[in-house]
Formats: sequence, C-alpha cells, structure tokens
Amino acid sequence: VLGEFDLIALLRERVEAAGAPAGDHVILGPGDDAAVTLPRGATATSVDAMVEGVHFRRETFPPEAIGHKALAVALSDLAAMGAAPGEAYVQVGVPDDLRADELAAVADGLGSVARSAGVAIAGGDVVRSPALWLAVTVVGHAEASREFVRRGGASPGDALVLTGPVGGAAAGLLLLERPELASALDAATADRIRDRQLRPSLRLEAGRALASAGASAMIDVSDGLAADAGHVAAASGVLLRVELTHEVLEAGVEQVAAAAGLDPLDLVAGGGEDYELLAAVPQDSVKAALEAVRATGFDPATVGRVEDGEGAVLSGPTGREVSDGGYDQLRPPAPAGPSG
Amino acid sequence: VLGEFDLIALLRERVEAAGAPAGDHVILGPGDDAAVTLPRGATATSVDAMVEGVHFRRETFPPEAIGHKALAVALSDLAAMGAAPGEAYVQVGVPDDLRADELAAVADGLGSVARSAGVAIAGGDVVRSPALWLAVTVVGHAEASREFVRRGGASPGDALVLTGPVGGAAAGLLLLERPELASALDAATADRIRDRQLRPSLRLEAGRALASAGASAMIDVSDGLAADAGHVAAASGVLLRVELTHEVLEAGVEQVAAAAGLDPLDLVAGGGEDYELLAAVPQDSVKAALEAVRATGFDPATVGRVEDGEGAVLSGPTGREVSDGGYDQLRPPAPAGPSG
Repeated sequence: VLGEFDLIALLRERVEAAGAPAGDHVILGPGDDAAVTLPRGATATSVDAMVEGVHFRRETFPPEAIGHKALAVALSDLAAMGAAPGEAYVQVGVPDDLRADELAAVADGLGSVARSAGVAIAGGDVVRSPALWLAVTVVGHAEASREFVRRGGASPGDALVLTGPVGGAAAGLLLLERPELASALDAATADRIRDRQLRPSLRLEAGRALASAGASAMIDVSDGLAADAGHVAAASGVLLRVELTHEVLEAGVEQVAAAAGLDPLDLVAGGGEDYELLAAVPQDSVKAALEAVRATGFDPATVGRVEDGEGAVLSGPTGREVSDGGYDQLRPPAPAGPSG
Repeated sequence: VLGEFDLIALLRERVEAAGAPAGDHVILGPGDDAAVTLPRGATATSVDAMVEGVHFRRETFPPEAIGHKALAVALSDLAAMGAAPGEAYVQVGVPDDLRADELAAVADGLGSVARSAGVAIAGGDVVRSPALWLAVTVVGHAEASREFVRRGGASPGDALVLTGPVGGAAAGLLLLERPELASALDAATADRIRDRQLRPSLRLEAGRALASAGASAMIDVSDGLAADAGHVAAASGVLLRVELTHEVLEAGVEQVAAAAGLDPLDLVAGGGEDYELLAAVPQDSVKAALEAVRATGFDPATVGRVEDGEGAVLSGPTGREVSDGGYDQLRPPAPAGPSG
C-alpha cells in the first residue's frame, strides 16, 4: 500500500500528464502549505462531493469516470454563474482496496476535464478513508461581481432557456444499474445515455454566453429539473412554468423509461444530474441568448416562462403536471456487496 | 432521517448562531450556485480533510471537537503562510447513524473556530456517506503574493523558531486511546494535553507576526516535526538541525511517554498535529520575531538552525538524534467496533 505522500505525488503527476493547465491566476501551485493565486476581479467559489455507495458505485463507474464526473459536476456550478473557470482543489478519500492504477485513472479523469475546461488543479490532498470520495472546490473569475448570474433575478415575463435535452443522466443510471433495459435502444444511443450519467460534459462557455446575453437568473440541473426550477423560483420570488416537449427529452429517454415502467417526466423532474443550464432570459434577449448558446456547440430550447406566483410547475409531453415539492433526487439503489 | 437540504440548513443556522462572521470579502454567501467574493490582492488557498476511523474515532472525539479540529487544522496552513484568514468552505459526509444533534454540535465547533479566527463560512455542502468526514477549503488574503511565506526560502545561518511546545497532540491521542495513562498526570494537565489533540488553537496572528518579522520559510507542524522540518529542508535545499530541550516539550508529554514506554522524542518527531509554526528567521530578525510572536500570546523558542546540507535532524533532551526519513505520521490505532 502506498503512503499518502506517494498517492499525492501519483495524483499530481497524472493530472499534469493529462494536460491540466498551470492557470493564469496561479502564482504558486501544489506542494506548499497553500496555493497562491492572484484573482484580480471577483471570484465565484463552489464545492461538490461524490461519495462511493451514495453518488456512484465502483461496480458501474469506471475510475476515470469518477474523476471526470467529480470535477465536471463542480464546474457545472461555475457554468451556472457564468464564471470563467480558474482553479480547482481536489481532495480524495482513498480506501485501502483502491489500487494505485485505479487512483491513477481517477486522476486521468480529473486531468482530462481540467484540460478541456482550462482549469488549473492548484491544490489537493489525499487521505485514507473507509470509502472512496472526492470533494472538489472550484474557483471561477469575472472582472466584477455583477457579471455573475445568481438564482434570484428572474422576473415575470422572462423566458426559460435550457441549454440542451434532459432526462439522459437518470436514464443512464437506469442502464448502469439494470443493463437489460439497454435492449430497448441501439448501442450508440445506449452509450450516449450512459455517458450522460458517467461523464457530464461542460457548459462553461454556454453559461458565459447566457450571462453576456443578459440572463436574469441561472442554475444548473443537478438536483432534478423540478427542484432546480424551484430553487430559482424561491430565490426570485416568482413562479417558473416549465413545458417539456418530446424535443427537450434526450433521445432514448422515453424508451428507457417505458422499458422500466416509468414516466419520462419523473426522470426529468426528479433525476437531475443532466447539468444543462436553466436560465431566465428577458424576452427581448431570447433570440440573442439562443444564438449565443448555439455558437458554443449546444442545442438550446425555450422551455417555458416566468410568471407571478411561487414554486415551479413542470408539464410533460402528455400534459401531466408535477411541481417542485414532490421530488427528492433519485439516487442509485443502495449498493449490495463489498463496496457499500 | 433529515434530507440533505435540511442538513445544509441546520449546519448553516448553527454556524451563524455560533457567531461566524459574514466576511469582509464576501459579496454573496451560501445558498446560490457559488459564493462570490472580492479578494482584492493575492489569495492563499488550502484544503484539509478529516475522516472517521482514520483521523478520529467518534468514540473518543466529541462531535463539537470534530468540527473544531477540521476547521482549525485547515486554518493552520493559512497561519503557516502568514495569511489573513478570509473564507472557509466546508463539505461534510454524513453517515445515517449521525444524529441531528451531533451534526449540530459539529457545526458548533466549526462556528466557534470561525468566530475566533474571523473566518466567514461562505459555502459548503452536506452529502450522505458511509463514514463521517469533513473536507475543508480555506482562503486567506494578503495585499501582494510576496507577503506569503513559503517553505522554500530558508538559508544557512537562519535560526529556527517554534511558536510553542510540541508533543502534546500525540500525547493527547495516547490519553484518548489509553485512558489509564492519565494516572501519570494531574487532571488539569491531562485535560490540556487531550485538548491539544481535540481542539488545536489557532496561530494565525503568530503566523502573520512571523511573516512581518521577516521569516524566510514557514510550515505548520502537522505531519510530525521530523517530516515537516524535512519538507522545509527539501523545498529550501538546506539542512534543518532542530534541538529540542525539555522546555520545548509540552508539560506532561514526558510523563505520558514514560507511562506508555515511549521516547518523547518519537511523539514530537512522528506525532504531528501540534500545529505550532516552525519558521526559519534570519539571525538579525530573531529577536523581533520572538517578541512579535509573544505579543500574540504564544511562547516561542529558538530550536535550532539552518545549515548547508539536506534533510532534517532532530535531537532530543537526551541527546538522541532522529532524521526526517524515519517517520510516517503516527495515527490513531485502527478502530475496533462499529465505527470502522
């Protein structure tokens, strides 16, 4: 078994080899008592953790995906602020039965996301732990704090813009936990849906585009579209009415839901983890906002509007409605076997 | 069982009730996708985690001490940079068998340290976990990055200054794990030694005083004085010769070591967790540095010197010498029973 200093060195080396940048703001990276940065303007800081047996199981999540998802999920909060990504700090709890090559693969996943996001991994720590977990802190930047988009600015009349299709991450979790459901799909679609769960892609540029285009409020879809729309509604003191058409459901989600005997609306409303951005946009900025998001490579849609009132109401393709009060986030089934 | 949103609300409420400040740099605190701060100059950022069954056992650590120690340990890295404390972000992994009142006590410990350090708890997260853990990120400030004291600036001829007595934290761990050893001490001394393990006090002002007084290199004694002196030696390309007299040993450490059949030098060299600061100080600044630390309420001592060479050599009151290569950090014994 490697000691903690060895594990830290291994992690750092692999993250560097994956091409994580040194960081424009970083004066002193890992290895001292603290990292030193020069932020200039305002910073946005967010934390996110992933825990074995709660957010993933090692039986279904390859170690590289664990690293990928942990950093991508944390960065999603920066995307939802419209922040320019800066630095990440990664703490890893390592159980004795995690092999060095598995930890190296976790680092590869972290490093690959860091490279594509342009985020410096400026610090971190490795500690022994009974279960594998990653706790990530990310810092994003803006010239002034007013450039960040909060949850509380939505006004009645604003349109709701979603950066892409939803429901895929929850459907992907179903495919991972119940592989027989994949027979409802062609192989490429099944792979894409599993990747929505395993390897969320980044919407940092889309978030900045929405911020520049005048989004009045923004959040990432992490807890489930119902809960997340509810958070914006509560912070803004408004009602969010979200209308989901077939087109806003990730391709294949309806088939997986049907095979599992579920309503796809429940996967969208309660599943979460899609990490699309939901933004409120004043009507006269909607066209520019949609175009700006498209220019970053995503396929946004308007999915409803902000009204006077409170809470969030989602309606699905069948006309069924659900509200934000009715959902706790769907979670992987309790693990059976040694990893739990 | 409370949901994660309830636990986050509980934690936030208790931390506020304990008097944690809002933070001079904080524009937007907890509750949005990210906290927003306005750092102005340079920042120092460090992370630290404490894990049940590895760094503490719930049988011997009261929940309030778990919160206290997690934040104090993270802040110790800022002290070692000479940073002014700014913000903390706290992630907590909560097992199902942790009661709400125990989590509230963890928050009380966090809040109490935040208040006395003047640190804002600007963000955080609560997640379910098989074991209790806290992962803390702290951010400190300075007007310019050159004000931070790194590990790599020690020069031959510099004196070594220690902000206070060492060995207490390792002796305290022995008392917690083997209560019968306390019969070697009076009750007040035993309490004080246990508190060195449970509730490290903060040396933030002492760290800034040493920085202002011209310390050339600095580190906190977390991994053990041998390893930590070795880190400074390696970063600076010098030899650190540390000479420990009776006076530099925490009162009672020699009795606990004798009762346990150990050499007190081993507790100091390998025990760590004393969170005193070890600074290299140019000779013409030593007097001012000692006075500046005394003015912050601590009792510093010169404990050796920097020489040409490499590595660290510690000698104890008996003349016995140990080097930095020979120690891994002493850890609590593997827990027996349900908490492991």
